Amino acid sequence: MFNITFVFTQLMFSSVYKRLVTMLPVQMCISNASAASRLTLQSFRFYCQKTPMKLRICEAVSRLDVGSKITVQGWVRSVRLQKQNLFLHVNDGSCLQSLQVVASAALNQRLLTFGSAVAVSGCLVKSPSRGQEVELQATQIDVVGECNTVDFPFKIKERHDLEYIRQFPHLRCRTNTFSSLLRIRSQATTAIHSYFEEKGFIQVHTPVVTSNDCEGAGELFQVELAGQEKKSGQEEDQHFFSVPAYLTVSGQLHLECIAGAFPGVYSFGPTFRAENSQSRRHLAEFYMVEAEISFTQTLESIMKVMEDLFRSTTEHLLARCPDDVALFHKHVKPRHNINVDLMMKKRFNVITYTEAIDILNSSSQTFAFKPDWGFDLQTEHEKYLVKHCGNVPLFVTDYPYTLKPFYARDNLDLPLHTVSAVDLLVPGVGELCGGTLREERLELLKKRLELTGLDETYGWYLDLRQFGSVPHGGFGMGFERYLQCVLGVDNIKDVIPFPRYSRSCLL
Amino acid sequence: MFNITFVFTQLMFSSVYKRLVTMLPVQMCISNASAASRLTLQSFRFYCQKTPMKLRICEAVSRLDVGSKITVQGWVRSVRLQKQNLFLHVNDGSCLQSLQVVASAALNQRLLTFGSAVAVSGCLVKSPSRGQEVELQATQIDVVGECNTVDFPFKIKERHDLEYIRQFPHLRCRTNTFSSLLRIRSQATTAIHSYFEEKGFIQVHTPVVTSNDCEGAGELFQVELAGQEKKSGQEEDQHFFSVPAYLTVSGQLHLECIAGAFPGVYSFGPTFRAENSQSRRHLAEFYMVEAEISFTQTLESIMKVMEDLFRSTTEHLLARCPDDVALFHKHVKPRHNINVDLMMKKRFNVITYTEAIDILNSSSQTFAFKPDWGFDLQTEHEKYLVKHCGNVPLFVTDYPYTLKPFYARDNLDLPLHTVSAVDLLVPGVGELCGGTLREERLELLKKRLELTGLDETYGWYLDLRQFGSVPHGGFGMGFERYLQCVLGVDNIKDVIPFPRYSRSCLL
Repeated sequence: MFNITFVFTQLMFSSVYKRLVTMLPVQMCISNASAASRLTLQSFRFYCQKTPMKLRICEAVSRLDVGSKITVQGWVRSVRLQKQNLFLHVNDGSCLQSLQVVASAALNQRLLTFGSAVAVSGCLVKSPSRGQEVELQATQIDVVGECNTVDFPFKIKERHDLEYIRQFPHLRCRTNTFSSLLRIRSQATTAIHSYFEEKGFIQVHTPVVTSNDCEGAGELFQVELAGQEKKSGQEEDQHFFSVPAYLTVSGQLHLECIAGAFPGVYSFGPTFRAENSQSRRHLAEFYMVEAEISFTQTLESIMKVMEDLFRSTTEHLLARCPDDVALFHKHVKPRHNINVDLMMKKRFNVITYTEAIDILNSSSQTFAFKPDWGFDLQTEHEKYLVKHCGNVPLFVTDYPYTLKPFYARDNLDLPLHTVSAVDLLVPGVGELCGGTLREERLELLKKRLELTGLDETYGWYLDLRQFGSVPHGGFGMGFERYLQCVLGVDNIKDVIPFPRYSRSCLL
Repeated sequence: MFNITFVFTQLMFSSVYKRLVTMLPVQMCISNASAASRLTLQSFRFYCQKTPMKLRICEAVSRLDVGSKITVQGWVRSVRLQKQNLFLHVNDGSCLQSLQVVASAALNQRLLTFGSAVAVSGCLVKSPSRGQEVELQATQIDVVGECNTVDFPFKIKERHDLEYIRQFPHLRCRTNTFSSLLRIRSQATTAIHSYFEEKGFIQVHTPVVTSNDCEGAGELFQVELAGQEKKSGQEEDQHFFSVPAYLTVSGQLHLECIAGAFPGVYSFGPTFRAENSQSRRHLAEFYMVEAEISFTQTLESIMKVMEDLFRSTTEHLLARCPDDVALFHKHVKPRHNINVDLMMKKRFNVITYTEAIDILNSSSQTFAFKPDWGFDLQTEHEKYLVKHCGNVPLFVTDYPYTLKPFYARDNLDLPLHTVSAVDLLVPGVGELCGGTLREERLELLKKRLELTGLDETYGWYLDLRQFGSVPHGGFGMGFERYLQCVLGVDNIKDVIPFPRYSRSCLL
């Protein structure tokens, strides 16, 4: 009883009371019957509950609890004191939107500043002003944690650019942009898992530490016991694992093991490249989605999974985090939503590598690297091709045999000699996915490994082909590049919580 | 037309025909009206389709397509030739169950052996024999990939033990037991993500490579560019990242950064300990679920998340992979289902560390390590406590201040002096989870870090407490230990696809 009396006493003498009285009839007028009955229940709860309901801000702004006594907890994004009233915006990360809090100026306190953590109790009402549908008429404001605004790197009402906030990896989640990024990243992860789960794929945790270096390509990180001096004696005594061990550059070969007993498998985890580059598209530690499909004989079936994955993940994001995505399409890359709409509306294009070279050679554009059959496509070539083909994602298939790793399936099309490989190029980013049919024919694979002297190293991989080998294929998609593509983020360091790259490993 | 004629010609002269004719009436008698109308549709499809439907075996055994012409693809788990008939069991990993294939002995081929990969087409019918509800009356069997049965390490009809199959990490997924494990692991992963998603947690990809060593505890792996000789000159030139970098032992501190802007965050990824042990409970690379909850002031709220996570994941597994789980409860640890039922039925127990020491000291059992207040609980103590408290999971709370890391929240209960820490001990495994309330009070945290000389190293961590600090807490759960606990698997190496431990890093 004390609690209710206390609240009313506070209400009677506060400006909040007047606002509340003004608000209630609006709420009562709601024509929807179920909303009305809900209101009755809410009002009942409002009078009976001993302590206010704790709500997340995404729940509070959903308007379901208008009329209730609630408590929210979060961080102050803005604070404005007028003669009679105090206005706050409180955000708790559950959504982009902050909750407007209105209180008597008497509730103002010295520590109630931008960046401070607060718990606010009061009555949730329809807002009379534009800009928000509900607001919290506060009867109590507790500063839970103060904020040293002098040292805090972010300032009230300022939109700091991505490069600036990148300097503060432990704090940048407190900005609107990075908080949106983290919600999007989490939802994209959920979408990817859902896609594969629905298609009956098994998720496999492929190892981070590995004794094989997959493609023999790319600079590797080595892993050893810390603080260990180089020992004399046997080679195997030198290493924690008895053999040199590396951080994985791809889970593909491990996935292929498991694909030998399942219709489809995938992994989604960290992958590593020790590239000494400061590029906007490369990280030393990045996330890769990799899938392997058994009993498939065409590159088209692999391309279908790539395209479906891209579409279903993007649809999920647009449906589940529209406000967060819109922030990027408004403030980070204005009007990027038009590009995304285009990608979603049109089918992805398909050309062969040979056609790609022809297109490049008949172009009037001068390239720094002259396009030539048998050589890798450069970023400038990829960008030209994507634009030439309508600025939607573009599959390039059937690459020269010599350009792809040993496991790519030979098309046996001499004298051209290509393999069943496909790259997916996307606007603004370039290569997003790479895939191949895998060489399932023991004799062909053996010969190729023998030629490169790798047949002993990959004896276990050859095993997969002599015990019930099936035609199969798969691909990998760079998760950060996907986010760059959909959000229009220029620098890959801005789409991962803690970026690692040459000369930088903060925290 | 050719196709249908061909099928019928084959049918007329095969024993399959007789079996099919026998089966059809059984199917027609189904009383369920919708099933009957479906049958009509199926029959129609059977006559009209040009190529048979491709079905996964989990779909085929679901009986929805009885009467249809189908194709399945998979691996032969058993093969038996009788005078007139050939019997196969084909498994494709989509479920534990194999599909029984019955064909004319004329379809037998030399390469049709245990372990070979096949594509089988025919008519799906109700099975007349016990042991399965449907079977495939085959009209065509193609061996897609032969199996060298001499060198293949697994033999027909043999149940190889876990230790034996562990020697073949690239092939063990082809055994029933490990194939079940992989399905369970995948479903458990899904369940964990669903749990947190439903509760509104954001998933965060905490980094694998880190420049801080979290608790200062545990042996670390260091990461450097491979093939790099030690350079002379500046310390920062020695390292790819300019600073020494390690594989993470916990994502907690990174999660705490993000928890400074969200109500709840979690991570689920690989974690590393360079422990030189051959224990049944330790791996060098293992998976950890970690969660951090903002605005919480009680250890009970953390314990509730731990218990709910355990229960909801286990319920999901029992509902979604009952056959796979039953295999473990039958062949790996017989009657372990009784233990799991007990854990699910009873509430988890809670005792304080101080009570735990009292229980141990009043026990008549002799311990190798005498239990004493202020010292860590040993495995023998943990096992005793769990048994003493009814063989269900047991929370032990409020450990001595000196036993827990710097971030544990001081209970300020001198002279006892404990911290708000909790471990969850489970039957058979011991410690499954560890959690604490985190010290959110800047001054207390600063003092503790200064005492250990870590205040400069953890300057960024102190930052979190001066810019809107909130009471918060969290925990970590070892994913492999969870699987050991629920499945009754003795050795942790048998619940992860590619185990890494001291002296071993296969593939």
